[in-house]
Amino acid sequence: MPNDSLSALAKLVLDFRTARDWKQFHTPKELAISLVVEAAELLEIFQWRQGRELEEAIQKRKSEISDELGDCLHSILLLAHDLKIDLGEALAEKMRKMEAKYPVAKAKGKPKKYNELD
Amino acid sequence: MPNDSLSALAKLVLDFRTARDWKQFHTPKELAISLVVEAAELLEIFQWRQGRELEEAIQKRKSEISDELGDCLHSILLLAHDLKIDLGEALAEKMRKMEAKYPVAKAKGKPKKYNELD
Amino acid sequence: MPNDSLSALAKLVLDFRTARDWKQFHTPKELAISLVVEAAELLEIFQWRQGRELEEAIQKRKSEISDELGDCLHSILLLAHDLKIDLGEALAEKMRKMEAKYPVAKAKGKPKKYNELD
Amino acid sequence: MPNDSLSALAKLVLDFRTARDWKQFHTPKELAISLVVEAAELLEIFQWRQGRELEEAIQKRKSEISDELGDCLHSILLLAHDLKIDLGEALAEKMRKMEAKYPVAKAKGKPKKYNELD
Repeated sequence: MPNDSLSALAKLVLDFRTARDWKQFHTPKELAISLVVEAAELLEIFQWRQGRELEEAIQKRKSEISDELGDCLHSILLLAHDLKIDLGEALAEKMRKMEAKYPVAKAKGKPKKYNELD
Repeated sequence: MPNDSLSALAKLVLDFRTARDWKQFHTPKELAISLVVEAAELLEIFQWRQGRELEEAIQKRKSEISDELGDCLHSILLLAHDLKIDLGEALAEKMRKMEAKYPVAKAKGKPKKYNELD
Repeated sequence: MPNDSLSALAKLVLDFRTARDWKQFHTPKELAISLVVEAAELLEIFQWRQGRELEEAIQKRKSEISDELGDCLHSILLLAHDLKIDLGEALAEKMRKMEAKYPVAKAKGKPKKYNELD
Repeated sequence: MPNDSLSALAKLVLDFRTARDWKQFHTPKELAISLVVEAAELLEIFQWRQGRELEEAIQKRKSEISDELGDCLHSILLLAHDLKIDLGEALAEKMRKMEAKYPVAKAKGKPKKYNELD
Protein backbone atom coordinates (compact mmCIF):
# COMPACT_ATOMS: atom_id res chain seq x y z
CA MET A 1 0.00 0.00 0.00
CA PRO A 2 1.63 3.28 -1.04
CA ASN A 3 1.43 6.30 1.25
CA ASP A 4 0.62 4.18 4.27
CA SER A 5 3.65 5.14 6.33
CA LEU A 6 3.56 8.19 8.59
CA SER A 7 7.29 8.66 8.22
CA ALA A 8 7.07 8.58 4.42
CA LEU A 9 4.16 11.07 4.47
CA ALA A 10 6.08 13.31 6.86
CA LYS A 11 9.04 13.23 4.47
CA LEU A 12 6.78 14.28 1.61
CA VAL A 13 5.49 17.24 3.57
CA LEU A 14 8.91 18.25 4.90
CA ASP A 15 10.60 18.08 1.50
CA PHE A 16 7.89 20.34 0.11
CA ARG A 17 8.43 22.82 2.92
CA THR A 18 12.21 22.76 2.75
CA ALA A 19 12.18 23.43 -1.00
CA ARG A 20 10.07 26.57 -0.38
CA ASP A 21 11.91 27.69 2.75
CA TRP A 22 8.58 27.85 4.59
CA LYS A 23 9.72 26.54 7.96
CA GLN A 24 10.18 30.18 9.04
CA PHE A 25 6.37 30.65 8.86
CA HIS A 26 5.51 27.33 10.48
CA THR A 27 5.74 28.04 14.16
CA PRO A 28 3.83 25.51 16.26
CA LYS A 29 1.31 28.24 17.06
CA GLU A 30 0.68 29.02 13.38
CA LEU A 31 0.37 25.32 12.61
CA ALA A 32 -2.16 24.92 15.41
CA ILE A 33 -4.12 27.88 14.01
CA SER A 34 -3.95 26.22 10.63
CA LEU A 35 -5.30 22.95 12.00
CA VAL A 36 -8.30 24.65 13.61
CA VAL A 37 -9.06 26.63 10.45
CA GLU A 38 -8.95 23.48 8.32
CA ALA A 39 -10.98 21.41 10.78
CA ALA A 40 -13.63 24.15 10.74
CA GLU A 41 -13.64 24.11 6.92
CA LEU A 42 -14.34 20.39 7.13
CA LEU A 43 -17.14 20.90 9.66
CA GLU A 44 -18.63 23.59 7.42
CA ILE A 45 -19.41 20.88 4.86
CA PHE A 46 -21.71 19.13 7.35
CA GLN A 47 -23.30 22.33 8.64
CA TRP A 48 -27.11 22.93 8.63
CA ARG A 49 -27.87 19.47 7.23
CA GLN A 50 -29.44 16.37 8.68
CA GLY A 51 -30.57 12.98 7.45
CA ARG A 52 -30.83 12.36 3.75
CA GLU A 53 -29.67 15.85 2.78
CA LEU A 54 -26.55 15.39 4.88
CA GLU A 55 -25.89 12.04 3.22
CA GLU A 56 -26.23 13.61 -0.20
CA ALA A 57 -23.90 16.48 0.67
CA ILE A 58 -21.30 14.00 1.89
CA GLN A 59 -21.44 11.98 -1.33
CA LYS A 60 -21.41 15.07 -3.53
CA ARG A 61 -18.53 16.73 -1.71
CA LYS A 62 -16.39 13.65 -1.06
CA SER A 63 -13.34 15.09 -2.77
CA GLU A 64 -13.56 18.31 -0.75
CA ILE A 65 -13.77 16.24 2.42
CA SER A 66 -10.76 14.24 1.29
CA ASP A 67 -8.89 17.47 0.66
CA GLU A 68 -9.68 18.87 4.09
CA LEU A 69 -8.61 15.62 5.76
CA GLY A 70 -5.34 15.87 3.81
CA ASP A 71 -4.93 19.47 5.02
CA CYS A 72 -5.48 18.45 8.63
CA LEU A 73 -3.02 15.54 8.43
CA HIS A 74 -0.53 17.92 6.80
CA SER A 75 -0.63 20.30 9.77
CA ILE A 76 -0.51 17.45 12.28
CA LEU A 77 2.54 15.88 10.63
CA LEU A 78 4.42 19.20 10.64
CA LEU A 79 3.51 19.93 14.26
CA ALA A 80 4.60 16.47 15.36
CA HIS A 81 7.86 16.72 13.44
CA ASP A 82 8.75 20.21 14.68
CA LEU A 83 7.98 19.34 18.29
CA LYS A 84 9.76 15.97 18.03
CA ILE A 85 6.60 14.04 18.85
CA ASP A 86 6.22 10.51 17.50
CA LEU A 87 2.71 10.83 16.10
CA GLY A 88 1.96 7.10 15.79
CA GLU A 89 3.17 6.53 19.34
CA ALA A 90 1.08 9.52 20.52
CA LEU A 91 -2.01 7.81 19.12
CA ALA A 92 -1.07 4.39 20.52
CA GLU A 93 -0.50 5.96 23.93
CA LYS A 94 -3.84 7.73 23.70
CA MET A 95 -5.59 4.45 22.94
CA ARG A 96 -3.94 2.83 25.97
CA LYS A 97 -5.32 5.64 28.15
CA MET A 98 -8.74 5.29 26.54
CA GLU A 99 -8.71 1.53 27.22
CA ALA A 100 -8.19 2.28 30.90
CA LYS A 101 -10.73 5.09 30.99
CA TYR A 102 -13.47 3.33 29.07
CA PRO A 103 -13.34 -0.41 29.86
CA VAL A 104 -15.56 -2.39 27.49
CA ALA A 105 -17.79 -3.65 30.31
CA LYS A 106 -18.65 -0.13 31.40
CA ALA A 107 -18.60 1.80 28.14
CA LYS A 108 -20.22 -0.55 25.66
CA GLY A 109 -23.06 1.14 23.80
CA LYS A 110 -22.86 4.37 25.77
CA PRO A 111 -21.62 7.62 24.25
CA LYS A 112 -18.32 8.66 25.74
CA LYS A 113 -19.54 11.91 27.27
CA TYR A 114 -22.62 10.27 28.74
CA ASN A 115 -20.35 7.78 30.33
CA GLU A 116 -18.17 10.48 31.83
CA LEU A 117 -21.14 11.77 33.78
CA ASP A 118 -21.58 8.45 35.58
CA MET B 1 9.35 1.58 13.61
CA PRO B 2 6.18 0.53 15.42
CA ASN B 3 2.95 2.47 14.89
CA ASP B 4 4.18 3.99 11.67
CA SER B 5 1.50 2.55 9.43
CA LEU B 6 -1.78 4.40 8.92
CA SER B 7 -3.60 1.14 8.28
CA ALA B 8 -2.27 -0.38 11.51
CA LEU B 9 -3.24 2.76 13.48
CA ALA B 10 -6.68 2.74 11.86
CA LYS B 11 -7.10 -0.89 12.93
CA LEU B 12 -6.19 0.03 16.51
CA VAL B 13 -8.81 2.76 16.55
CA LEU B 14 -11.48 0.67 14.85
CA ASP B 15 -10.99 -2.33 17.12
CA PHE B 16 -11.39 -0.06 20.12
CA ARG B 17 -14.61 1.34 18.71
CA THR B 18 -16.07 -1.99 17.67
CA ALA B 19 -15.47 -3.47 21.13
CA ARG B 20 -17.50 -0.59 22.65
CA ASP B 21 -20.17 -0.49 19.97
CA TRP B 22 -19.51 3.22 19.52
CA LYS B 23 -19.89 3.42 15.75
CA GLN B 24 -23.52 4.43 16.32
CA PHE B 25 -22.32 7.72 17.85
CA HIS B 26 -19.62 8.38 15.27
CA THR B 27 -21.44 10.00 12.43
CA PRO B 28 -19.13 11.97 10.13
CA LYS B 29 -20.69 15.16 11.45
CA GLU B 30 -19.97 14.25 15.08
CA LEU B 31 -16.43 13.24 14.18
CA ALA B 32 -15.90 16.57 12.42
CA ILE B 33 -17.21 18.37 15.53
CA SER B 34 -14.82 16.28 17.57
CA LEU B 35 -11.87 17.24 15.37
CA VAL B 36 -12.59 20.97 15.71
CA VAL B 37 -13.00 20.70 19.47
CA GLU B 38 -9.68 18.84 19.82
CA ALA B 39 -7.84 21.18 17.45
CA ALA B 40 -9.09 24.12 19.52
CA GLU B 41 -7.87 22.41 22.71
CA LEU B 42 -4.47 22.17 21.08
CA LEU B 43 -4.53 25.84 20.06
CA GLU B 44 -5.53 26.81 23.60
CA ILE B 45 -2.09 25.63 24.78
CA PHE B 46 -0.41 28.28 22.61
CA GLN B 47 -2.90 31.03 23.45
CA TRP B 48 -1.83 34.45 24.89
CA ARG B 49 1.87 33.59 24.74
CA GLN B 50 4.74 34.80 22.61
CA GLY B 51 8.50 34.39 22.49
CA ARG B 52 10.27 32.79 25.42
CA GLU B 53 7.08 32.23 27.42
CA LEU B 54 5.56 30.39 24.50
CA GLU B 55 8.69 28.23 24.19
CA GLU B 56 8.51 27.38 27.87
CA ALA B 57 4.83 26.50 27.71
CA ILE B 58 5.50 24.20 24.77
CA GLN B 59 8.28 22.36 26.62
CA LYS B 60 6.30 22.12 29.83
CA ARG B 61 3.12 20.89 28.17
CA LYS B 62 4.69 18.59 25.58
CA SER B 63 2.72 15.54 26.73
CA GLU B 64 -0.58 17.45 26.55
CA ILE B 65 0.31 18.52 23.02
CA SER B 66 1.15 14.93 22.15
CA ASP B 67 -2.21 13.86 23.56
CA GLU B 68 -4.13 16.42 21.52
CA LEU B 69 -2.29 15.44 18.33
CA GLY B 70 -3.26 11.83 19.08
CA ASP B 71 -6.88 12.92 19.56
CA CYS B 72 -6.89 14.74 16.24
CA LEU B 73 -5.35 11.83 14.35
CA HIS B 74 -7.91 9.54 16.01
CA SER B 75 -10.83 11.55 14.61
CA ILE B 76 -9.21 11.86 11.20
CA LEU B 77 -8.61 8.11 10.94
CA LEU B 78 -12.22 7.35 11.85
CA LEU B 79 -13.59 9.93 9.41
CA ALA B 80 -11.40 8.62 6.59
CA HIS B 81 -12.38 5.02 7.33
CA ASP B 82 -16.11 5.68 7.57
CA LEU B 83 -16.15 7.74 4.39
CA LYS B 84 -13.91 5.24 2.55
CA ILE B 85 -11.23 7.85 1.97
CA ASP B 86 -7.61 6.70 1.65
CA LEU B 87 -6.01 9.17 4.05
CA GLY B 88 -2.41 8.73 2.87
CA GLU B 89 -3.50 9.14 -0.73
CA ALA B 90 -5.57 12.22 0.25
CA LEU B 91 -2.42 13.82 1.61
CA ALA B 92 -0.29 12.77 -1.38
CA GLU B 93 -2.92 14.21 -3.72
CA LYS B 94 -3.00 17.41 -1.72
CA MET B 95 0.76 17.74 -2.01
CA ARG B 96 0.55 17.28 -5.78
CA LYS B 97 -1.97 20.13 -5.95
CA MET B 98 0.24 22.27 -3.70
CA GLU B 99 3.24 21.58 -5.97
CA ALA B 100 1.26 22.97 -8.89
CA LYS B 101 -0.13 25.91 -6.94
CA TYR B 102 3.10 26.96 -5.27
CA PRO B 103 5.99 26.27 -7.63
CA VAL B 104 9.34 26.63 -5.85
CA ALA B 105 10.47 29.47 -8.09
CA LYS B 106 7.46 31.58 -7.16
CA ALA B 107 6.79 30.58 -3.58
CA LYS B 108 10.24 30.27 -2.04
CA GLY B 109 10.52 32.30 1.13
CA LYS B 110 7.05 33.81 0.87
CA PRO B 111 4.21 32.88 3.20
CA LYS B 112 1.51 30.95 1.42
CA LYS B 113 -1.26 33.49 1.94
CA TYR B 114 0.96 36.39 0.92
CA ASN B 115 1.72 34.53 -2.24
CA GLU B 116 -1.95 33.96 -2.96
CA LEU B 117 -2.43 37.70 -3.14
CA ASP B 118 0.06 38.07 -6.00
CA MET C 1 -33.23 46.63 30.89
CA PRO C 2 -29.73 46.76 32.38
CA ASN C 3 -26.77 45.55 30.32
CA ASP C 4 -28.65 45.88 27.06
CA SER C 5 -26.35 48.43 25.48
CA LEU C 6 -23.34 47.30 23.46
CA SER C 7 -21.47 50.49 24.31
CA ALA C 8 -22.09 50.00 28.05
CA LEU C 9 -20.96 46.36 27.83
CA ALA C 10 -17.88 47.40 25.87
CA LYS C 11 -17.08 49.94 28.60
CA LEU C 12 -17.36 47.21 31.24
CA VAL C 13 -14.93 45.02 29.37
CA LEU C 14 -12.51 47.84 28.54
CA ASP C 15 -12.40 49.17 32.10
CA PHE C 16 -11.58 45.67 33.32
CA ARG C 17 -8.77 45.41 30.81
CA THR C 18 -7.35 48.86 31.43
CA ALA C 19 -7.21 48.26 35.18
CA ARG C 20 -5.10 45.13 34.56
CA ASP C 21 -2.97 46.59 31.78
CA TRP C 22 -3.91 43.63 29.57
CA LYS C 23 -4.24 45.46 26.28
CA GLN C 24 -0.64 44.51 25.54
CA PHE C 25 -1.70 40.84 25.30
CA HIS C 26 -4.87 41.51 23.34
CA THR C 27 -3.69 41.72 19.76
CA PRO C 28 -6.51 41.16 17.27
CA LYS C 29 -4.89 37.84 16.38
CA GLU C 30 -4.89 36.65 20.01
CA LEU C 31 -8.48 37.80 20.45
CA ALA C 32 -9.50 35.87 17.33
CA ILE C 33 -7.73 32.77 18.72
CA SER C 34 -9.59 33.34 21.96
CA LEU C 35 -12.93 33.53 20.18
CA VAL C 36 -12.37 30.22 18.35
CA VAL C 37 -11.24 28.50 21.53
CA GLU C 38 -14.34 29.70 23.42
CA ALA C 39 -16.71 28.88 20.57
CA ALA C 40 -15.26 25.36 20.51
CA GLU C 41 -15.77 25.05 24.28
CA LEU C 42 -19.41 25.94 23.68
CA LEU C 43 -19.73 23.38 20.90
CA GLU C 44 -18.14 20.75 23.14
CA ILE C 45 -21.23 20.93 25.38
CA PHE C 46 -23.43 19.74 22.50
CA GLN C 47 -20.98 17.09 21.27
CA TRP C 48 -21.94 13.38 20.87
CA ARG C 49 -25.55 14.01 21.89
CA GLN C 50 -28.83 13.93 20.02
CA GLY C 51 -32.52 14.19 20.82
CA ARG C 52 -33.62 13.89 24.42
CA GLU C 53 -30.10 13.46 25.78
CA LEU C 54 -29.04 16.65 24.05
CA GLU C 55 -32.05 18.48 25.52
CA GLU C 56 -31.15 17.26 28.99
CA ALA C 57 -27.51 18.29 28.63
CA ILE C 58 -28.59 21.76 27.54
CA GLN C 59 -30.88 22.19 30.56
CA LYS C 60 -28.31 20.80 32.96
CA ARG C 61 -25.45 22.88 31.64
CA LYS C 62 -27.34 26.13 31.01
CA SER C 63 -25.02 28.21 33.20
CA GLU C 64 -21.94 26.85 31.42
CA ILE C 65 -23.53 27.77 28.10
CA SER C 66 -24.31 31.23 29.43
CA ASP C 67 -20.69 31.57 30.53
CA GLU C 68 -19.33 30.56 27.14
CA LEU C 69 -21.67 32.99 25.37
CA GLY C 70 -20.39 35.70 27.71
CA ASP C 71 -16.81 34.72 26.85
CA CYS C 72 -17.51 34.93 23.14
CA LEU C 73 -19.21 38.31 23.39
CA HIS C 74 -16.28 39.51 25.49
CA SER C 75 -13.79 38.70 22.73
CA ILE C 76 -16.02 40.15 20.03
CA LEU C 77 -16.46 43.43 21.92
CA LEU C 78 -12.70 43.80 22.39
CA LEU C 79 -11.96 42.96 18.77
CA ALA C 80 -14.54 45.44 17.53
CA HIS C 81 -13.28 48.17 19.85
CA ASP C 82 -9.59 47.67 19.01
CA LEU C 83 -10.27 47.61 15.28
CA LYS C 84 -12.65 50.57 15.47
CA ILE C 85 -15.54 48.52 14.13
CA ASP C 86 -19.09 49.48 15.15
CA LEU C 87 -20.35 46.05 16.14
CA GLY C 88 -24.07 46.84 16.06
CA GLU C 89 -23.69 48.46 12.65
CA ALA C 90 -21.64 45.44 11.46
CA LEU C 91 -24.58 43.20 12.33
CA ALA C 92 -27.18 45.54 10.81
CA GLU C 93 -25.09 45.71 7.61
CA LYS C 94 -24.82 41.92 7.57
CA MET C 95 -28.59 41.60 7.87
CA ARG C 96 -29.06 44.00 4.95
CA LYS C 97 -26.78 41.79 2.83
CA MET C 98 -28.64 38.68 3.98
CA GLU C 99 -31.97 40.30 3.03
CA ALA C 100 -30.64 40.78 -0.51
CA LYS C 101 -29.07 37.32 -0.70
CA TYR C 102 -31.99 35.38 0.73
CA PRO C 103 -35.24 37.07 -0.31
CA VAL C 104 -38.20 35.65 1.59
CA ALA C 105 -39.89 34.37 -1.55
CA LYS C 106 -36.88 32.25 -2.46
CA ALA C 107 -35.50 31.25 0.92
CA LYS C 108 -38.58 30.53 3.00
CA GLY C 109 -38.38 27.12 4.63
CA LYS C 110 -35.11 26.14 2.95
CA PRO C 111 -31.84 25.82 4.85
CA LYS C 112 -29.41 28.54 3.86
CA LYS C 113 -26.73 26.27 2.46
CA TYR C 114 -29.25 24.22 0.49
CA ASN C 115 -30.44 27.43 -0.99
CA GLU C 116 -26.95 28.48 -1.97
CA LEU C 117 -26.67 25.43 -4.18
CA ASP C 118 -29.66 26.49 -6.30
CA MET D 1 -26.50 55.65 18.74
CA PRO D 2 -28.47 53.32 16.47
CA ASN D 3 -28.01 49.56 16.72
CA ASP D 4 -26.54 49.79 20.18
CA SER D 5 -29.19 47.76 21.95
CA LEU D 6 -28.84 43.97 22.21
CA SER D 7 -32.59 43.58 22.35
CA ALA D 8 -33.07 45.66 19.19
CA LEU D 9 -30.36 43.67 17.38
CA ALA D 10 -31.92 40.42 18.56
CA LYS D 11 -35.26 41.59 17.16
CA LEU D 12 -33.62 42.33 13.80
CA VAL D 13 -32.16 38.84 13.65
CA LEU D 14 -35.32 37.12 14.86
CA ASP D 15 -37.61 38.96 12.44
CA PHE D 16 -35.32 37.93 9.59
CA ARG D 17 -35.48 34.31 10.73
CA THR D 18 -39.22 34.26 11.31
CA ALA D 19 -39.91 35.67 7.84
CA ARG D 20 -37.91 32.80 6.32
CA ASP D 21 -39.18 30.09 8.66
CA TRP D 22 -35.60 29.15 9.47
CA LYS D 23 -36.01 28.42 13.16
CA GLN D 24 -36.47 24.76 12.24
CA PHE D 25 -32.80 24.64 11.12
CA HIS D 26 -31.46 26.63 14.05
CA THR D 27 -31.03 24.07 16.78
CA PRO D 28 -28.61 25.22 19.48
CA LYS D 29 -26.16 22.61 18.23
CA GLU D 30 -26.26 23.94 14.66
CA LEU D 31 -25.89 27.49 15.91
CA ALA D 32 -22.87 26.48 17.97
CA ILE D 33 -21.37 24.81 14.87
CA SER D 34 -22.07 28.00 12.99
CA LEU D 35 -20.31 30.12 15.59
CA VAL D 36 -17.16 27.98 15.46
CA VAL D 37 -17.11 28.01 11.67
CA GLU D 38 -17.45 31.81 11.59
CA ALA D 39 -14.88 32.37 14.33
CA ALA D 40 -12.44 30.20 12.35
CA GLU D 41 -13.13 32.25 9.22
CA LEU D 42 -12.21 35.33 11.22
CA LEU D 43 -9.03 33.71 12.52
CA GLU D 44 -8.12 32.70 8.98
CA ILE D 45 -7.69 36.38 8.13
CA PHE D 46 -4.87 36.67 10.68
CA GLN D 47 -3.23 33.37 9.77
CA TRP D 48 0.46 33.09 8.73
CA ARG D 49 1.12 36.80 9.27
CA GLN D 50 3.11 38.75 11.83
CA GLY D 51 4.18 42.34 12.36
CA ARG D 52 3.79 44.81 9.54
CA GLU D 53 2.27 42.29 7.14
CA LEU D 54 -0.38 41.42 9.72
CA GLU D 55 -1.15 45.10 10.22
CA GLU D 56 -1.55 45.60 6.49
CA ALA D 57 -3.81 42.58 6.14
CA ILE D 58 -6.01 43.89 8.94
CA GLN D 59 -6.37 47.31 7.31
CA LYS D 60 -6.98 45.84 3.87
CA ARG D 61 -9.55 43.32 5.04
CA LYS D 62 -11.36 45.48 7.60
CA SER D 63 -14.76 45.00 5.99
CA GLU D 64 -14.33 41.21 5.92
CA ILE D 65 -13.44 41.31 9.60
CA SER D 66 -16.49 43.45 10.28
CA ASP D 67 -18.60 40.93 8.39
CA GLU D 68 -17.27 37.99 10.38
CA LEU D 69 -17.84 39.81 13.67
CA GLY D 70 -21.40 40.44 12.54
CA ASP D 71 -21.79 36.73 11.72
CA CYS D 72 -20.52 35.72 15.14
CA LEU D 73 -22.81 38.16 16.96
CA HIS D 74 -25.69 36.88 14.84
CA SER D 75 -25.17 33.30 16.02
CA ILE D 76 -24.67 34.38 19.62
CA LEU D 77 -27.88 36.42 19.65
CA LEU D 78 -29.89 33.51 18.26
CA LEU D 79 -28.37 31.03 20.70
CA ALA D 80 -29.06 33.32 23.65
CA HIS D 81 -32.63 33.95 22.54
CA ASP D 82 -33.47 30.30 21.89
CA LEU D 83 -31.99 29.18 25.20
CA LYS D 84 -33.60 32.08 27.09
CA ILE D 85 -30.24 33.43 28.19
CA ASP D 86 -29.91 37.16 28.86
CA LEU D 87 -26.74 37.82 26.88
CA GLY D 88 -25.88 41.18 28.44
CA GLU D 89 -26.36 39.73 31.90
CA ALA D 90 -24.25 36.68 30.93
CA LEU D 91 -21.38 39.02 30.09
CA ALA D 92 -21.86 41.15 33.21
CA GLU D 93 -21.88 38.00 35.34
CA LYS D 94 -18.73 36.79 33.60
CA MET D 95 -16.98 40.06 34.35
CA ARG D 96 -17.96 39.75 38.02
CA LYS D 97 -16.34 36.29 38.11
CA MET D 98 -13.27 37.62 36.31
CA GLU D 99 -12.99 40.45 38.86
CA ALA D 100 -12.85 37.85 41.62
CA LYS D 101 -10.48 35.55 39.75
CA TYR D 102 -8.06 38.22 38.59
CA PRO D 103 -7.85 40.94 41.22
CA VAL D 104 -6.00 43.98 39.89
CA ALA D 105 -3.23 43.71 42.47
CA LYS D 106 -2.36 40.18 41.37
CA ALA D 107 -3.13 40.26 37.65
CA LYS D 108 -1.87 43.66 36.53
CA GLY D 109 0.48 43.34 33.58
CA LYS D 110 0.47 39.54 33.55
CA PRO D 111 -1.21 37.53 30.79
CA LYS D 112 -4.23 35.68 32.08
CA LYS D 113 -2.95 32.18 31.40
CA TYR D 114 0.44 32.94 32.92
CA ASN D 115 -1.36 34.08 35.99
CA GLU D 116 -3.39 30.89 36.18
CA LEU D 117 -0.20 28.93 36.57
CA ASP D 118 0.71 30.80 39.76
